[in-house]
Amino acid sequence: MSLIVTGSVGIDTVETPDGQRADEVLGGSSIYFAAGASYFTPVRLVAAVGDDFPAPMLDQFKQFDVCTDGLEQREGSKTFRWHGRYHENMNDRDTLDVQLNVLGEALPPVPDHYKDSKYIFLANTHPAGQLALLEQFPDRKLVVADTMDLWIETEPDLLKTLLSKIDGFVLNDSEAKQLTGEQNVIKAADAVLAMGPTFVIVKKGEHGAILRHKDGTGVLPAFPADQVVDPTGAGDSFASGMMGYLCAADDTSVDAIKRAMAYGTIVASYTIEKFSTDRLAEIDRATIEERVKEFATHLDIGAGI
Amino acid sequence: MSLIVTGSVGIDTVETPDGQRADEVLGGSSIYFAAGASYFTPVRLVAAVGDDFPAPMLDQFKQFDVCTDGLEQREGSKTFRWHGRYHENMNDRDTLDVQLNVLGEALPPVPDHYKDSKYIFLANTHPAGQLALLEQFPDRKLVVADTMDLWIETEPDLLKTLLSKIDGFVLNDSEAKQLTGEQNVIKAADAVLAMGPTFVIVKKGEHGAILRHKDGTGVLPAFPADQVVDPTGAGDSFASGMMGYLCAADDTSVDAIKRAMAYGTIVASYTIEKFSTDRLAEIDRATIEERVKEFATHLDIGAGI
Repeated sequence: MSLIVTGSVGIDTVETPDGQRADEVLGGSSIYFAAGASYFTPVRLVAAVGDDFPAPMLDQFKQFDVCTDGLEQREGSKTFRWHGRYHENMNDRDTLDVQLNVLGEALPPVPDHYKDSKYIFLANTHPAGQLALLEQFPDRKLVVADTMDLWIETEPDLLKTLLSKIDGFVLNDSEAKQLTGEQNVIKAADAVLAMGPTFVIVKKGEHGAILRHKDGTGVLPAFPADQVVDPTGAGDSFASGMMGYLCAADDTSVDAIKRAMAYGTIVASYTIEKFSTDRLAEIDRATIEERVKEFATHLDIGAGI
Repeated sequence: MSLIVTGSVGIDTVETPDGQRADEVLGGSSIYFAAGASYFTPVRLVAAVGDDFPAPMLDQFKQFDVCTDGLEQREGSKTFRWHGRYHENMNDRDTLDVQLNVLGEALPPVPDHYKDSKYIFLANTHPAGQLALLEQFPDRKLVVADTMDLWIETEPDLLKTLLSKIDGFVLNDSEAKQLTGEQNVIKAADAVLAMGPTFVIVKKGEHGAILRHKDGTGVLPAFPADQVVDPTGAGDSFASGMMGYLCAADDTSVDAIKRAMAYGTIVASYTIEKFSTDRLAEIDRATIEERVKEFATHLDIGAGI
């Protein structure tokens, strides 16, 4: 099965409350997604960077099983940059600087040999871009999109059009409330479901995630992590484990999605242990399986129930 | 097995953000605990009210399988009163008025025929009172205590003494951080464990609860509730289902505690559906079992993992 991701590639500078920082490291939604999902299935990447993108950064990324034929290096453009600082609680963050650069320009082209992709993750970008990309995959079997508060505020109608064309939607709890006007997260999720998708996953960061699916409900806590270095990319890593698992299993049932969410939780739990994709670069599928098994014991409330 | 609870009985006035309110209704930590636990095992209640405590309120409470021989109606004293208003998020609340009254006086006596109690829940009160009560149960098998931010701030040393004498401690996430100075909830839980108890449960309200036990870890989300009328008593209800289950099973193993936490989650999910103990008064053990089974499907990430 073929998994494709479209989204951002960025050069990040991240500061954490204990005084650590990472300067100009590889980031972006599609990078975290592709790296994590590559432990489940080969991943195709569609994204754009500028002519300032450092060759060693790309070389380093090539250790993941990701096809970068769709990574356009655009002459005369600059790569997306983000500089953020996390608060003491490691959940809230301030954006100190953001330069959209190539992200504000035309979409990267989809290589012809990617057009048979069946599992598609539209990482956060302008919903017009998500819609345009979506149409380029006529064989799509499962399309899941992410979004952010900016598009909910500025492009609610386009987002609703997107929601009528995709299978699954992931967003965080504050975004779900913003999009629907519902304060209760379950009501908010149900209101999103009513907009068209088959399922919605509300991400709650360190508090886990909730699935509302036309055929059922799933609730998962986060993996109990005592070493959080940098939460950047946790949401995309969650999506990566989830989509990677579903694509490898070629199963889109509600039971598969619940299991897939556990894999997503575990990939995210590794991502946050180091800056950038540094921790993801150290693990393998066996490491993931080991922690998923541990997580299953945490969740185990007894066979008798 | 015998389960005993000591804590507050109050007359509450509660306002919720949708404009609903309940005036002068039965509340207090030991009331929520005793009502919920009574679906698992008979419960003994040690608490004090004033001579203003309405007889119909007591009559109504007698529908629960709770022995009230230890409920002292103290002449010349007044019952604890609390008036609170919840914020839009149904999590934060303002206390508009609180009158400690009898809670600020001498502890209620423990009836002699309660002194063989084996499962003991010390609901939130001054830690000196919790310590004094604890000593009156020489046959104790499992002692679990709750606390609040006030005692962490004003009586940290007494709390540490208490922690060295009990088996389990339940507190919410902000209290765990306050008590230990650790921002990460897992590190905070481990720091509490280092103070003496065999296990600690960090309650996160709508985000579930985390168990750190000398023999293992459990993490549970909350039940996905779409109808939250009044969160008052949710924490004590969680403790009630947990302790009720453990006492009925006469099992204090880590696996039993993890299962017990699921029962606690479900009892709390009923409590918040109506004001006071109104919803608890409508359910039975079968209702609880039915929702625990539903919750188990939410948590089910597949047998293959």
